[in-house]
Amino acid sequence: GYGRFGLYYQEDAANETTITSRFRLQIDATAESDAGVTFGARVRMQQDNDDPIDTGDVAADGFSPSGTFRGDRVSTGMNGVRFFARAGGLEVGVGNIFGALESMPGQYPIDLGLTGLGYEYTAYNFRGAAYDSDEGGSAGLGGVEVIYTYGDFTVHASFDKTDSVAGDGNLDGDRAAIYGAYAWNGWTFALGLQDSDVDTDTEVTASVSGDIGPANVTLAYADNGTDGDHWVLAGRFDVGASTNIEAYVADADYFDEESYGIDFNHSLGGGTSLRGGIVKYSSGTTAADLGVRFNF
Amino acid sequence: GYGRFGLYYQEDAANETTITSRFRLQIDATAESDAGVTFGARVRMQQDNDDPIDTGDVAADGFSPSGTFRGDRVSTGMNGVRFFARAGGLEVGVGNIFGALESMPGQYPIDLGLTGLGYEYTAYNFRGAAYDSDEGGSAGLGGVEVIYTYGDFTVHASFDKTDSVAGDGNLDGDRAAIYGAYAWNGWTFALGLQDSDVDTDTEVTASVSGDIGPANVTLAYADNGTDGDHWVLAGRFDVGASTNIEAYVADADYFDEESYGIDFNHSLGGGTSLRGGIVKYSSGTTAADLGVRFNF
Amino acid sequence: GYGRFGLYYQEDAANETTITSRFRLQIDATAESDAGVTFGARVRMQQDNDDPIDTGDVAADGFSPSGTFRGDRVSTGMNGVRFFARAGGLEVGVGNIFGALESMPGQYPIDLGLTGLGYEYTAYNFRGAAYDSDEGGSAGLGGVEVIYTYGDFTVHASFDKTDSVAGDGNLDGDRAAIYGAYAWNGWTFALGLQDSDVDTDTEVTASVSGDIGPANVTLAYADNGTDGDHWVLAGRFDVGASTNIEAYVADADYFDEESYGIDFNHSLGGGTSLRGGIVKYSSGTTAADLGVRFNF
Repeated sequence: GYGRFGLYYQEDAANETTITSRFRLQIDATAESDAGVTFGARVRMQQDNDDPIDTGDVAADGFSPSGTFRGDRVSTGMNGVRFFARAGGLEVGVGNIFGALESMPGQYPIDLGLTGLGYEYTAYNFRGAAYDSDEGGSAGLGGVEVIYTYGDFTVHASFDKTDSVAGDGNLDGDRAAIYGAYAWNGWTFALGLQDSDVDTDTEVTASVSGDIGPANVTLAYADNGTDGDHWVLAGRFDVGASTNIEAYVADADYFDEESYGIDFNHSLGGGTSLRGGIVKYSSGTTAADLGVRFNF
Repeated sequence: GYGRFGLYYQEDAANETTITSRFRLQIDATAESDAGVTFGARVRMQQDNDDPIDTGDVAADGFSPSGTFRGDRVSTGMNGVRFFARAGGLEVGVGNIFGALESMPGQYPIDLGLTGLGYEYTAYNFRGAAYDSDEGGSAGLGGVEVIYTYGDFTVHASFDKTDSVAGDGNLDGDRAAIYGAYAWNGWTFALGLQDSDVDTDTEVTASVSGDIGPANVTLAYADNGTDGDHWVLAGRFDVGASTNIEAYVADADYFDEESYGIDFNHSLGGGTSLRGGIVKYSSGTTAADLGVRFNF
Repeated sequence: GYGRFGLYYQEDAANETTITSRFRLQIDATAESDAGVTFGARVRMQQDNDDPIDTGDVAADGFSPSGTFRGDRVSTGMNGVRFFARAGGLEVGVGNIFGALESMPGQYPIDLGLTGLGYEYTAYNFRGAAYDSDEGGSAGLGGVEVIYTYGDFTVHASFDKTDSVAGDGNLDGDRAAIYGAYAWNGWTFALGLQDSDVDTDTEVTASVSGDIGPANVTLAYADNGTDGDHWVLAGRFDVGASTNIEAYVADADYFDEESYGIDFNHSLGGGTSLRGGIVKYSSGTTAADLGVRFNF
């Protein structure tokens, strides 16, 4: 797992400058059959600075950008579990699945600053099944996925249920997604397709990424259903042996404005790093963070 | 601990075929005094496929047989803790105690299929104190037990409080249970007695189990208070080096129909196994499961 | 971590004699940079006998002195996380901080009996930021602290936010505290100061502790804001190689009566011990406990 802590600034928030932190303990439990099939489970125990610890603190006043603790959870235990069986290049997963679109190359071209700073550079915009580090994800929603890797080619299909009417004892919708990716001469091409009963979910997404001189560059696009298109151009540049700089520009039909940002990551050795970034969100709000991350 | 996942089918359920899963991480923490007394605690962190992860998901729509997540818990943390002190053949436990009747030989003659498939082959029918893997059990209800083993003889007495009026700040009832078991020539005889202020709790239960040719057979009976009698006949048969088959038939005064089922367990090596079973519940409903279990 | 269990008696409680227990699993996760800075996080997973395990058990009937489970929490997961960076004698902490007054020498001169027995011998009386083992503490309340040690001198400053109006999305107050302590010839002198927007918080506290013959003795005082003064005299005496006795007398303007108590701690080796104590609380109530503690 890892820990991170530092400062987060967000213009015009209830608390403009707050202390941001995350603790993530990851447990990967596995066993291998005599025939070489690996069975396993992944769980995370995670806590963010704006998570309530006690049931009495849910949505209470807190020193977060919004001024309150999150209202939907008590984040002190395990997230939804992902189970898998893996043999050769084939893996089947159930529960809190990774999700095909979430796992597709080019959806996370960079990881901006200390905290991710809004992830507006993720083209599919979380409009599909995704591994959830502090809630249930598709666990309990019928999540199933198959991942197959053959040489330079990867294909990943996922399925889960969606719910359009809460509280009627029925998950009434389905969501199926698939991506294929191919690595060729240092470039990676990926195409994802999804059929979902939620009409603002992603329908098509594509990405290409590779090195251009000293930079790793990604161009990604998504057709996010009735909400329209999302474009991302992002790059990462090494500056010196232990520092890199990342930057992006993104636009979407549902953005008020173009979104862009830049960060730096400086390794301090031993699994520790200093990170910071600044972003202008699609809402027009400026945000920035700065702090340390340590892996354990 | 262990993980398991697979499919569960239940006739006429809101969701007839669902993905079933469980993750169980067991922590046994102990210390030993200079005089050789072991003090310890057992906790489990467990999550089932129909457990809500967030407070906001309690009783929400989920892909479980009932169509919803469980309504009484957020199952992402530790269960009730069992504490114990052990020396020689004597063990004292407090908290989320094992419970005398729950621990008595013959109450779990088999473990049907992947998920247990209803446990209608447990004669005392959970009408007594029992270790609870995902809730509190007798922790906080004054649970205490003493277990003594001397050669082929075991005796186990447990005590906890019961509550007949919720929310009055008073646990108004008591429950005391004891069993004695004797192993003789490959046969195990056990007798359990209970005195409880809950009048549907078990009063008397008895079992005998042993090998008849290639089969391990158990006959168990319980007088479950004002709800009447419960009879179980169960057996396990090895078929080949790594496979066994289990089957049972049970009847009780509170059953609509006779209950019966059959399963197989096939070891895949390395602590992994393929398991499946089919059962006709006492309600007349047919259910089945199939999947893998892996120990870690 | 550690476990402890035993009996707790409290005169005139809903349940006068109850089974008391605690399980504490402590996780210290750290990483060290090439320059020798240690980054880390501390979390505890703790469960007490009067903690509800399920959301449905919050404030339900339980076998605790009060007759119910605690109403404000489901205590089965992680507490608020404390993050830190440490180099040489300097440490910076954020989140569920230790707190300056809570960490000041002389505030915990003894640890009475098995359970602490009310901690009325802590002069600052928890009127300041404090590490919280089973809730959030200052995590999410802007907790920050700096600890600096130079030879025999220690200084510790902490800061967090306070809330006078619940539910308005605003932590409207501030709390800053600092202590300095100096060790000289076997004696430790400490002085703490606090500026808080809560007017019953501690303003000044001081302590002196050291050995007088076979006894370690502490005298502590606190000016606890508008609630008045708190005085504590406490001592610890070794009696034999593996047993000690602790005793205290305390008075405060907000006590009905003088508070006093005595205990013993007897090591059983291997990290296990037998502990018990008796106290007369400031309310006039007598309480006592007896049990074992084991470290793991």
